[in-house]
Amino acid sequence: MGDQSGENGGNRRKRTPKKPTIMDVARVSGVSYATVSRFLNGNPHVSPEAAERIAAAVREVNYIPNNAARSLVRQRTQTVAFVMHGEPETITTDPNINTIMVNANRRLGEAGYQLVVLICDTDEAAERIARLVRSGFADGWILNNLHVGDRLFTVFRESNAPVAVSGVGYGGQSPFPTVDIDNHAASTALTRYMLDQGYRRIAYLRGPNFIPCSYGRFEGFRSTMRGLFDPDLVVDAYGWSRADGREAVRLLLAKLAGIRDDAADGNRPDVAPDADFAGVNPDALDIAQLLRDHGIDAMMCANDCIAAGAMQYLVSHGVRVPQDIAIAGFDDSPDAAASTPPLTTVRQPIGRFGIEMADMVLAQIEGDEPKRIVWLPTEVVPRQSA
Amino acid sequence: MGDQSGENGGNRRKRTPKKPTIMDVARVSGVSYATVSRFLNGNPHVSPEAAERIAAAVREVNYIPNNAARSLVRQRTQTVAFVMHGEPETITTDPNINTIMVNANRRLGEAGYQLVVLICDTDEAAERIARLVRSGFADGWILNNLHVGDRLFTVFRESNAPVAVSGVGYGGQSPFPTVDIDNHAASTALTRYMLDQGYRRIAYLRGPNFIPCSYGRFEGFRSTMRGLFDPDLVVDAYGWSRADGREAVRLLLAKLAGIRDDAADGNRPDVAPDADFAGVNPDALDIAQLLRDHGIDAMMCANDCIAAGAMQYLVSHGVRVPQDIAIAGFDDSPDAAASTPPLTTVRQPIGRFGIEMADMVLAQIEGDEPKRIVWLPTEVVPRQSA
Repeated sequence: MGDQSGENGGNRRKRTPKKPTIMDVARVSGVSYATVSRFLNGNPHVSPEAAERIAAAVREVNYIPNNAARSLVRQRTQTVAFVMHGEPETITTDPNINTIMVNANRRLGEAGYQLVVLICDTDEAAERIARLVRSGFADGWILNNLHVGDRLFTVFRESNAPVAVSGVGYGGQSPFPTVDIDNHAASTALTRYMLDQGYRRIAYLRGPNFIPCSYGRFEGFRSTMRGLFDPDLVVDAYGWSRADGREAVRLLLAKLAGIRDDAADGNRPDVAPDADFAGVNPDALDIAQLLRDHGIDAMMCANDCIAAGAMQYLVSHGVRVPQDIAIAGFDDSPDAAASTPPLTTVRQPIGRFGIEMADMVLAQIEGDEPKRIVWLPTEVVPRQSA
Repeated sequence: MGDQSGENGGNRRKRTPKKPTIMDVARVSGVSYATVSRFLNGNPHVSPEAAERIAAAVREVNYIPNNAARSLVRQRTQTVAFVMHGEPETITTDPNINTIMVNANRRLGEAGYQLVVLICDTDEAAERIARLVRSGFADGWILNNLHVGDRLFTVFRESNAPVAVSGVGYGGQSPFPTVDIDNHAASTALTRYMLDQGYRRIAYLRGPNFIPCSYGRFEGFRSTMRGLFDPDLVVDAYGWSRADGREAVRLLLAKLAGIRDDAADGNRPDVAPDADFAGVNPDALDIAQLLRDHGIDAMMCANDCIAAGAMQYLVSHGVRVPQDIAIAGFDDSPDAAASTPPLTTVRQPIGRFGIEMADMVLAQIEGDEPKRIVWLPTEVVPRQSA
């Protein structure tokens, strides 16, 4: 009360222990302040001997360098954040995301920026990242697999931060610079390839129904099949993993078995894609025979993982690919070539997603206008499965 | 010229454009400074209406929040960095690393810390990260796949930063708190399983020879095989990927073909594991016959990816697994169950690497003594391949 020992007024009783400074490091190491500063800033123009003495002095005085102080001076963090968005299961099994990250990191590194990856797999993680966005944690943001319903979508739209996203589909009106492939056209090309190979009754394992690219790929298939399209041969996968592909093909088989049984009674039902076939155990079916009964000669899948999971299930139950059924994937992720047999698929240049998104964010940081959208090329890659 | 209408009526000629402050946001939004501050710090106690007005004002005045200023006050970044260390190819094909990251992120999030992932795949990336270490970029560091010869190893040893690593083996003297499995014991258990199944002539595809766990796994195999061990049946893979497994088994086959041909001349050579078999084209061999000629009934591999790549090559060349040759992997990564046929392997609890390393770093940040080493349990997982 009324005690007025101010900062400059000499008679403080206690003082906080003094935090070691660069001056202390310079004194203990016997190296100049400028050299210590260069060392701490990572400038390569420091002799090995000086570096060793400085490092020893840092340990001796327990100096804790202060990145925040330098950020404050620069008003730049020199970092760009990459948000991995999805369920934990998606992030741990996505065969493409690390390729995108590695390429973005290389491009940003060339420009003097550090990529930092943040994982957004729960509501709590999204809440933390929203705080980081508002607090200016990074100079720019690369958003992978962000979708219109996601919580962070609004956070980024309300921020002034430089942003780039992969995947269009926000009602066709992405508010952010975007990198994507033309899923509809790529799927059309793959369907034409399948038709050219002579396949006619083609089942389809569709991707999760809330993701825009699922629709583009499916619609490319449906529109190209025209009169050959049969909605009874379509099943939705719940996710993009091999486990999801396995479950989806089991659902397809149960559905086919149900249709056959009912058809034998003369009552072919109108079966919804999400119908429940809990009564049928697909593992007990003669799968090759079931496929023959329905005349099914091929199956296309929303991505390679779904295709690989479905194929593994079929092969392990005695079905021959492509003799009994041809199978095609999508993406040309590492899973495609590594499957047994290797998968016919659509190649998209995965690494370039990272490079293009990095360039879009860098342009905005530098005050330039980024490209609004970059379409990457695709091509059909024929392998043994179809 | 000479126009002096300054904000405060002073006679400055020029002034730097004033950077917008929280006060500007408060004024424009009509919301109190304290509430704006709460919003910008991510405090949930802000009404939705206030949040909307503040967000609009942030855009209007183009306010750039300053994370650095707050870090400076706190002397904590509240972040822990996770370094993905390896060749680009390793990072993009490692089936386990994202599981470790996701688990570390969850644990750190519960403690109020943000995990940030940094990619260290080139000398330039290592140089940048070394600067970040010296600059106090993060409160702690999780180092995955860091090895004794790596450049960052020295950087971290010379820093005072809290660190945890996965994998022992720095001459048995890890200077950092460490999480690992007992590779030797786990490989011993798997080798015993193979011997119990009746396999006797077991080839071995060894992991890269500069990685400590490669040795632990190989030595567990060799010591358990005792008199049955044959050094001619050992080949080194150059990396941990499926492509490396494919190349390693091709090298093994070429080596076997070379031994057979020379043996027919009565001159069985002493073949080094890294011998060059450029003269033999393994694709042209009758592989099943070659394996029978040498009496080889099984093959163990340093990890699942190597095993999956080798198995895919053999299966695609008409070899039946396990009838012609049994195959075992190591790790129980997602590749193991997804292979055709599914792989017998050793399970290690991948996610727990992330949790335990997070705990070790948190303990150090809080000034507590971390555990020096945590050994995680393993178990043999029999599947169809052996």
